[in-house]
Order: sequence, then C-alpha cells, then structure tokens
Amino acid sequence: MTLKIVISGFGTVGQGVAEVLERKRDFIQRRFHRQVRIVAVFDSRSLAYDNEGLDPQELLEKKTTAGMVGDPRPQDMCRFLRDIDFDVLVEVSPTNIKTGGEGLLFIREALNKGAHVITVNKGPLALHFRELNGLAKKKNVQLRFEGAVGGAMPIINLCKENFMGERILTIQGILNGTCNFILSRMDKGLPFGQALKEAQELGYAEADPSYDIDGIDSASKVAILANAVFDRDVTFSDVSVTGITAITEDAISLAGDQNMVIRLIGEVSPDKLEVAPRLIPKGHPLSLSGTLNMAQINTDLAGPITISGRGAGRIETASAIFSDLVAILEAERQ
Amino acid sequence: MTLKIVISGFGTVGQGVAEVLERKRDFIQRRFHRQVRIVAVFDSRSLAYDNEGLDPQELLEKKTTAGMVGDPRPQDMCRFLRDIDFDVLVEVSPTNIKTGGEGLLFIREALNKGAHVITVNKGPLALHFRELNGLAKKKNVQLRFEGAVGGAMPIINLCKENFMGERILTIQGILNGTCNFILSRMDKGLPFGQALKEAQELGYAEADPSYDIDGIDSASKVAILANAVFDRDVTFSDVSVTGITAITEDAISLAGDQNMVIRLIGEVSPDKLEVAPRLIPKGHPLSLSGTLNMAQINTDLAGPITISGRGAGRIETASAIFSDLVAILEAERQ
Repeated sequence: MTLKIVISGFGTVGQGVAEVLERKRDFIQRRFHRQVRIVAVFDSRSLAYDNEGLDPQELLEKKTTAGMVGDPRPQDMCRFLRDIDFDVLVEVSPTNIKTGGEGLLFIREALNKGAHVITVNKGPLALHFRELNGLAKKKNVQLRFEGAVGGAMPIINLCKENFMGERILTIQGILNGTCNFILSRMDKGLPFGQALKEAQELGYAEADPSYDIDGIDSASKVAILANAVFDRDVTFSDVSVTGITAITEDAISLAGDQNMVIRLIGEVSPDKLEVAPRLIPKGHPLSLSGTLNMAQINTDLAGPITISGRGAGRIETASAIFSDLVAILEAERQ
Repeated sequence: MTLKIVISGFGTVGQGVAEVLERKRDFIQRRFHRQVRIVAVFDSRSLAYDNEGLDPQELLEKKTTAGMVGDPRPQDMCRFLRDIDFDVLVEVSPTNIKTGGEGLLFIREALNKGAHVITVNKGPLALHFRELNGLAKKKNVQLRFEGAVGGAMPIINLCKENFMGERILTIQGILNGTCNFILSRMDKGLPFGQALKEAQELGYAEADPSYDIDGIDSASKVAILANAVFDRDVTFSDVSVTGITAITEDAISLAGDQNMVIRLIGEVSPDKLEVAPRLIPKGHPLSLSGTLNMAQINTDLAGPITISGRGAGRIETASAIFSDLVAILEAERQ
C-alpha cells in the first residue's frame, strides 16, 4: 500500500526530507512493506505535483538550478490540498511566530481532510496547539512534531512516549544552538558583536538574527513543550523572555571568576515558562559549549535524564521528521 | 480488564517495582482503564500468592521484618509459573552471568505460556538473547528489558523505537556507575584501593566488587546492546573485556597532565564489542564524573545523540521496568 506525502516548504529542511525519503526507501519497503510516494512539493512560489509520484533527485536539482521546484503555484494552496489525495503532510514552510502564517492554514486543511501532519513549524504549534491537537484527535490522525524542539535531539516523543508513565516535573534546556554558539565564543573573550558576526559568517545566524538572540525561537520551543508535554494551554506570548543581547564581556568574565558560564536556558514546569540567561557552574550538563541543543528532564521516578544532540541542520532535522513518519507507519501496521 | 503480574526476585529492584505499581495505580486506571494486580511475588526462599491480588505495602513490610515475602517457596518454581494464571512476568532475580540462573528458566517458562516478560536480569539476555527473543516473537508476546542497560537512562527503547528508522553506527558509553565513581575519585588523587573502599562504604560497590571492577557488568550490557540494537547474536564471552583494577595513580596523573581522564568505556558497533579503560579529553561527554551512566549513540541521520541518567537505584530501575509495562499496556490498547 502506498503512503502519499505532500511536502509544504522546500527550503533546507524540506530538501533534507526529500533526500532522506530517497535514502530510506528500501528500509521502509523492508520494514513496513509499503511504498512512500511524494505526490506534491511546494514552496512560497512554485509547485510540483504528480499523483504517480515525484522523483526526489529531480526536485532537488530543479530547486538548486531554477530556485523553483516546479511551475508557479496557485494562490490558494488550501484548495489544492483539499482537492488532491494524500496521507501525510510534512509542513516545513517558514515560521511566522506572530500569526502562524500559511503553515497554520495548511496544517488545519490537512488534519481536516483526515491526513496525518508532521511539522517542525514552530508558529502554528506555539500559537494554536490545543486547537490543532484537538482537531487531530477528532479526525483520528496524528499530529507529530519531534523536530520542532531540539532538531535531531529526541525530546517530544521521549517525554510523551518513553516517559508516558513518569510525571515530568521540569524541563530545562539549551534550545537554541545559535545563542549557545555566541555565548561559548564570548567565554573565550569575544565581545557579543564579534561572536554574532562569526555566527553569521558560519551560517549559524541569520542576517536578521533577532529571532534567535532575542530568545524568540527558544520561547516558542518552551511554549511547545508546555503544551505537548505538560498539557498546558499557552501561547508564545505567555513565556517570560530575556534574550542575550544585553550580556556584556564583563558579565561573562565575572561569571568565569566564579567558575561559572552564562547560558540561555529555557525552563518549563507546571507553573513556569521562562527563557533567560542564567549562571551555570562549569561541569554542569547545562554548561555545554557549542551549537548542540541539550535538555535536562526531571521526572518523579527516573530522576534527572539529560539528552543532547544537533539542534539544526538539513539532514538532522529531517531525521526527526523521518522518526515521526516511522511512528505513523508503525502505528498503522498494528 | 485486570493485568496480572508476577514478580520474581524481591530484592531492591523487586521491592521498587511493587512500590511503583502502588504509586502509579491511579495513572494506569486513568490512562488505560485497567487494573494491575500483583498475583505472585517470590524470591530465592519464599513465595506469596493470591490470585485476587497481593497488597504491595504488606509485601514490603513482610520482606523488611521477616526477610521473607511469604511462606517457604516450592523447589520447582517453573511448575508454579506453569500452573497459575498471569499476564506479565517481571523477572528481577539475582543475575548469574555464567549460566543465566533461575531467571533464565522463569523467562522461558513465562514466554512459553504466552505471558509478556519484563526483565533487568542481564544473565539471560547476555547469554541466550536470540533464543528468548525468538520465543517471544513465536508466542506473539513482548520481551522487554529497558532497565537491563543503563537503569533509568533510556537506551534500549530509544534505539529500537525512537531511532527505528536510523542506522545506528556505534554506541559508546559509561555503563557501570560503580567504576565511574571509582575513576572519578581517582581523578581527585585517591589510589584505587581507597576509592574502591569508599564506593563500598557508600553502597555503590558490593563486598565482592569483581563483577563491577573487572568489567563483567559492563561487558554483559555491551552484549545485550549488540543483540538488541545491532541484531547480532553474541554472548557475554564474545566481548573483549579489560577492567579497571590495573589503573594506577600514575596513569591517572599522566592523563590529567594531558587534560584527559580515564573512563571505562563500553563500545558496540557492527564489528566491535569492547569494554576497556580509555583516555577521554576533559569536557567530552564521555568524561562524565560520578555515578551516572551515559551513552553516545551515533546514527546515520541524526548524528551523535548523548544521553545520561541514573544507572542504578531502587526506584530508578523500577522506573525503567514501569516504562516497559506502560509500553505493553499501550500496545494492548491499540
């Protein structure tokens, strides 16, 4: 039986998904006796569609050479989604943390027609989680988003599935690799501006870095964890946020004198929603340097569990999306 | 519908399981609409049995005050298991790494009669994994053992379920908290003998510590990971093992001069099975100090994932067993 996939958004992550689906074709066939077929791919300007299946390699080449994945797309992609036949929407279009953007509309449309949704788009999840989760339940389909927090680092499914029987008390984590890279460079004596410039040159930070350095990205992940793991009903704006732009060389150096570092920590618990720079003792798991993401999960039985992994990257984020797809295939097998 | 549980072995972990089942009674009822009933508990000398259910609190008191959990037990507990009605065997009797011990017989018996088995008993898994796993598949029941490696640290289910779609390249880890405690104390200048004595005083090491310090415990975990995660067919004796008894203060001090520590690392890959002391750069995840367990999992898509947690402890190990029970309940619900 064929599983028909639509990919909305064909930037770094969407391209990674196409590549991973190609690489894992044999695995899916062997393990689930199913064929996965990409029937549609679209981005903000263009659309490729073939109910018989698109060739991932061709899609990647077209996007690289022409900047478009196919023909100019229709204005109303919701109508397109309504009209075609598919089983899973992989929603990886650019995040809009104020409105949820087009991604929100696509996710609603897919769930409404009874398709599973896998997304790493933080806007819709940080703004309208309860509505979307309720809709998925009502339609008896899955809404999965492992990659939305921590990239390749398993956390959502770890908390919801592996730790289903635990009461999770708190999650504290380094949820933005860009900020952590900048703070790690400041540990070595660089001023903020220079560390940021280095992050931009290495491709870790955007030309407009405010989404990362003002703590907005971390805060949206905190909101997603609160909703998904703690069953709260919060939005991005409920999170108390302080970014890293006001951290001076002096502050870093004073911290160092006390054998501490400064890290941007997101914390979620039943009564806390915070992103703020904190003093962390050197050697503590949360004192991690570099671009990795990491989380410390405290539970009633297991005690503290620490996990880290790559928080971003084309194939790494696609790996989280693929783990969600595998979970959907596994559930359908039973 | 009631789920009937037998606990074989009523030492620290078995008692922890009884306590956790009591603490999580409401959760199970709420989440799965099922009652969990402990129908039999036995250890090497005694047996308590009641098809209507035993009171965990009473069991714990009896064991504490009388050293026995009930009446003297029959010699042939396999026959007992054959004769009574139950759904899940929790096998937590003392490990015998040479023969598999009684635990091996009980696991076989339970699987043969079509009951699920949850165990942390390393002997049977490190010696007869393929046979037991095959038997479970044939009988269409689950053989689960999250707690057998890493205690509360999730690793078996993480690799087999969360990372089902990944190709796992290697697992390297600190799999024995006792050795890691001793090595961490030696970092501070203590000689091996004194660090060992301290570990014994704190209850981390047994009176006969050879099982830990000769690397046997780590090696049995390496064998279990090889079988469960890499689908290999190995036993404990296939693992190349070096313990920590020959590590001198000089070696530790020389390592320190190069900004390194010595850690006992287990490594599994498709072509490696090894437990040996290794030089690890300070700041590397595997340089961890203290009694925690930790593992670095390298996969084809996600890259390196690092996880740590408490490798032992009454409630911590019981938490891993409980996560397996929850997985069984979840699978039966579908």
